[in-house]
Amino acid sequence: MQIRVYYEDTDTGGVVYHSNYLNFCERARSEIFFQKGLSPHRENEFFVVKSLSAEYVKPAIFGDFLEIKTILIEVKSASLVLNQQIFRNDTLLFDMNIKVAYLKNQKPSKIPKDILELFTLN
Amino acid sequence: MQIRVYYEDTDTGGVVYHSNYLNFCERARSEIFFQKGLSPHRENEFFVVKSLSAEYVKPAIFGDFLEIKTILIEVKSASLVLNQQIFRNDTLLFDMNIKVAYLKNQKPSKIPKDILELFTLN
Amino acid sequence: MQIRVYYEDTDTGGVVYHSNYLNFCERARSEIFFQKGLSPHRENEFFVVKSLSAEYVKPAIFGDFLEIKTILIEVKSASLVLNQQIFRNDTLLFDMNIKVAYLKNQKPSKIPKDILELFTLN
Amino acid sequence: MQIRVYYEDTDTGGVVYHSNYLNFCERARSEIFFQKGLSPHRENEFFVVKSLSAEYVKPAIFGDFLEIKTILIEVKSASLVLNQQIFRNDTLLFDMNIKVAYLKNQKPSKIPKDILELFTLN
Repeated sequence: MQIRVYYEDTDTGGVVYHSNYLNFCERARSEIFFQKGLSPHRENEFFVVKSLSAEYVKPAIFGDFLEIKTILIEVKSASLVLNQQIFRNDTLLFDMNIKVAYLKNQKPSKIPKDILELFTLN
Repeated sequence: MQIRVYYEDTDTGGVVYHSNYLNFCERARSEIFFQKGLSPHRENEFFVVKSLSAEYVKPAIFGDFLEIKTILIEVKSASLVLNQQIFRNDTLLFDMNIKVAYLKNQKPSKIPKDILELFTLN
Repeated sequence: MQIRVYYEDTDTGGVVYHSNYLNFCERARSEIFFQKGLSPHRENEFFVVKSLSAEYVKPAIFGDFLEIKTILIEVKSASLVLNQQIFRNDTLLFDMNIKVAYLKNQKPSKIPKDILELFTLN
Repeated sequence: MQIRVYYEDTDTGGVVYHSNYLNFCERARSEIFFQKGLSPHRENEFFVVKSLSAEYVKPAIFGDFLEIKTILIEVKSASLVLNQQIFRNDTLLFDMNIKVAYLKNQKPSKIPKDILELFTLN
């Protein structure tokens, strides 16, 4: 997953605004679905973020072309822990562990098999 | 309606990113409802933007404290045209005419009387 | 220029938040530079939005894959008027005319020849 | 620090988009400065986020009126750790520890005394 940094992503400090790295990672998670012709958002079923822990290693700036790598760390029946790293070329800029839970009708629910395979086969 | 400009609103050019003025104006429109204990979003009923025309007069910057003035320009049964201006003290920064249509179950629909009064009495 | 609609682009109404169409168009303008190995942001020199006029024809939703077409409408020495349209397949969703002015050290300035060619040759 | 949830803050899942809680917390940090007539952004001097760890306890929705509480957890010469919690009435929605470092001319630098007092006296 590759992402360009546009004006909207930056702030007056000249770098990418800190919460936008989370957005980039969310795009990468969604794109795992889209690339297989699936959607991360089914009627009344989708993942929500439960917790995250992030390190800001180096800043990204306007015009950067970033790469996002997503690795599965832990699988439970109703949640996943992913590690997501953002690179500019070979330089690590951002490193996050994120736990997402699967909700169906607003309740924690077993992750469907076709979705689980998206992540485990990655 | 008064709004502070935070980091998230700016870009690397050092000023407020152009589309965020539209967000500020949307907050002001929503706040007209909230101030009266109403919500702009009822089950399957809400306004959508149909068109807008905006002039960027002077830029707002980080830390600015802005005021947004909203005036009703035109009323039709299923739509409104509003003029919204953003000021820093007495200086006009942004001037927009915006047409919003009322949707009910995704179809243009007559604006309920209690909502219409919010705008006409303003 | 093609853009995917992610969660961050949508709102609780289930469609793309109205100001995000402006962001999509800005990405397309920036990408005209990036595709040629140039940047829209040079030290103390860049375009700013002066005015715009937009029609919201149909809504885009989560997961849509959009195409943005940018056409030059008018050229002056220090400003451009562009027409930008957003499509989902062959369906027009959004249509905007936008005037951008070139600033150098915060003053209106003649658009450099290499930048002008980016748009006139498009 | 109190914040209203507007359309721009939500996504198609009907709740506040996960990274926007970070934005709300950043507004609260900036407002600590503004309330005292100071700015968090001085010429070439400002805080940047180094790391954060966040729990999403319950979702906020459109129209919510949220309160953000900021507590100093740890002080070093060039960095601070803050705990920030977001509440709707007495219900905890979001809980984050965030480490921010003070930069001067892009290098870690001792936090000025007047800024340190803003946090220690809070």
